Amino acid sequence: MSARSKFAGNAIEEEDAFAARLARSGKSIIRLNRGDPVAYFPTPKYMVDAYVRALRSAKTGYSFHAGIPELREAISRRHRRLYNLNSEPGDVIVTQGVSEAIMFINSMLIDGRDRAVIFRPYYPLYFSSLRINGGKPIYADYMEDEEYGIDIDSLRRRLRNEKRVKYLILANPSNPTGSVLERKALREIADMANDHGVFIISDEIYDEITYNGATFTSMSEVSRGIPKAIFGGASKSFDATGFRIGYTIIPENDRFSAAAREKMADYAKMRLSSCTPAQYAFAEAIKNARAHNAAVRKMVAEIEDRTNFAYGLLEESGNLQISSRPKGAFYLFPKVEMERTDLKDDRDLVRRLLVEEGIQITRGSGFGAHDHIRIVSLPDKETLEMAIRKIDKFLDRHSR
Amino acid sequence: MSARSKFAGNAIEEEDAFAARLARSGKSIIRLNRGDPVAYFPTPKYMVDAYVRALRSAKTGYSFHAGIPELREAISRRHRRLYNLNSEPGDVIVTQGVSEAIMFINSMLIDGRDRAVIFRPYYPLYFSSLRINGGKPIYADYMEDEEYGIDIDSLRRRLRNEKRVKYLILANPSNPTGSVLERKALREIADMANDHGVFIISDEIYDEITYNGATFTSMSEVSRGIPKAIFGGASKSFDATGFRIGYTIIPENDRFSAAAREKMADYAKMRLSSCTPAQYAFAEAIKNARAHNAAVRKMVAEIEDRTNFAYGLLEESGNLQISSRPKGAFYLFPKVEMERTDLKDDRDLVRRLLVEEGIQITRGSGFGAHDHIRIVSLPDKETLEMAIRKIDKFLDRHSR
Repeated sequence: MSARSKFAGNAIEEEDAFAARLARSGKSIIRLNRGDPVAYFPTPKYMVDAYVRALRSAKTGYSFHAGIPELREAISRRHRRLYNLNSEPGDVIVTQGVSEAIMFINSMLIDGRDRAVIFRPYYPLYFSSLRINGGKPIYADYMEDEEYGIDIDSLRRRLRNEKRVKYLILANPSNPTGSVLERKALREIADMANDHGVFIISDEIYDEITYNGATFTSMSEVSRGIPKAIFGGASKSFDATGFRIGYTIIPENDRFSAAAREKMADYAKMRLSSCTPAQYAFAEAIKNARAHNAAVRKMVAEIEDRTNFAYGLLEESGNLQISSRPKGAFYLFPKVEMERTDLKDDRDLVRRLLVEEGIQITRGSGFGAHDHIRIVSLPDKETLEMAIRKIDKFLDRHSR
Repeated sequence: MSARSKFAGNAIEEEDAFAARLARSGKSIIRLNRGDPVAYFPTPKYMVDAYVRALRSAKTGYSFHAGIPELREAISRRHRRLYNLNSEPGDVIVTQGVSEAIMFINSMLIDGRDRAVIFRPYYPLYFSSLRINGGKPIYADYMEDEEYGIDIDSLRRRLRNEKRVKYLILANPSNPTGSVLERKALREIADMANDHGVFIISDEIYDEITYNGATFTSMSEVSRGIPKAIFGGASKSFDATGFRIGYTIIPENDRFSAAAREKMADYAKMRLSSCTPAQYAFAEAIKNARAHNAAVRKMVAEIEDRTNFAYGLLEESGNLQISSRPKGAFYLFPKVEMERTDLKDDRDLVRRLLVEEGIQITRGSGFGAHDHIRIVSLPDKETLEMAIRKIDKFLDRHSR
């Protein structure tokens, strides 16, 4: 195997094969590792209907490499409507999930010894895809005890001494912390990127899943004229993870943005097209704002309720510390003081929790934050309560 | 952009945006560049029905990273039934088309300065994905005038002096030549790979599309015990390109094969899953051998007829030389003596043919064979006749 392939993998999925074996041997497993809303909220019927219509009208062949025109147009309009973003359909590239976009971006921007700023805790693929492509991260740490704020001055100082920084990447709302960046913080990041000539990548796949009074601001709202890519897709806000449809908008007209658009399309050509009928379904989902809004409002209200409920349970727990109430996405990312346990590390914790209690969660180190665990807050309250109580008991048993 | 990203792209799609602009300006375009059977033979209804059933039963969330169990099982059984291959469902990894598998394989096997043997003419992605990942090709040339045979001795001599050769890759049936390798040739390749410790990658995506008396032999039939990966998928033999479902089987039990299986699954984890409902549709397509056989027999009979018809027209042409009648896939790959024309190169030919005649084909240099063009032989005879006559007239006009 190649040296760099040691970075392949995903903490979120790493125990899947092991969990499947346990399940086959009769153990019942509660899966709190994968952020799949569809497992708890069926994909809205009007989207499934649109998917079926596409299939029935023979939309089963290859489509244009960068996406069907209807979808690129719908995406461009969506961002104009929601975030006042001026973009053309030609600025949009449809991909097989945001994950494909991340791989394209890293291959096209990173040469050996290049660097990228990753906001930490991060979505695992940001790290692994950068490393597989020969790049190295510079971390911008969210301050856990200050509502996940960013120390922008220290990041600026760091960048002053760094050459070859090709981009910065962040997820807003954040996976895994559930934090949502304020407009002011986003503007500071955009200004900093502009001053240091760093391309901005803002992963906004959870853009419509905010609650607890949070207002989502798109990076595009505070970075007019600054080169950037915005990620979005069908998976989370549209509750259709299994469609595998994501997108990238590169809306600016500077030379770098134009080259990035063209290069990303070149990568898209290599795999001919994304799933064709799924693209028609997603186009319909975006265009049918009324049906979508009703569905997403209902889902987000439930997610808020469940997440707050789970948050309350964590607050009561003596073994798990959580400092801020999530405001977006559907994860809880509490701290575990590992040195107060007999567990070797968070990987050991996850493995043993699976064996002893049949609960699958994700180790914090997969997100760049040792001594944490990520719990998906999507299940119903009964399941969440049972699971969190079991995790608490498990940690009681392993404390020393 | 990264230095290696200059290799991103795909000759097959490179004029797509330009052709779309011409079409918008009112020009009618005959597209003979993309090998999409669905454009001419609708995906069989029983597969669409299965797809719809999956959607209606809420199969719209993430699925297991390496593929749904039903599909992995069906694929394993398919290869046992057709090619007597012993493999477990766990030896199968489902990907977003074979293209994703090619990218995974190159990232996991190739470090800078590594090499791979590519049989030439090749499918463009074999070359671009290898180069993007820092590797360099060693070419094994099919001998055009000897029915695309291989000079295995010269390849052996070449390999004797080469270190760091990580794999060999070939498509059988071949895209772009339509040739089908004989059992004896396959065995020689397998033996050579074994002697030199080179991993075999056999892309068999067109396995059921053979005709003109050809018998398809899977590489797996002649390479028992030799480490290899076999590619297949829904796109061609199952006439469902837009589903974007491919697969890789790594069936052997040596240490390298086991490591490759595991590593490829690690890559699959990074993008969570392939399109979920499409996997159910493909599983049904494989399991319903009766419906599939009826559909594929009908399609292949038509492809044989159309390809032979187009071959006859090329034989009559004074400007295009074709040496062997295709026996598989659905392409014609004639030679054009460029020095007898006023055209700069095959890229110039493709561009001007598009502008002057509204016909989109693919330049041979995209497949590693300058002075050739690839014509898709899927359209009805009327279209093929009109297109080939126009190409011929175009070349008359540009001869000197």
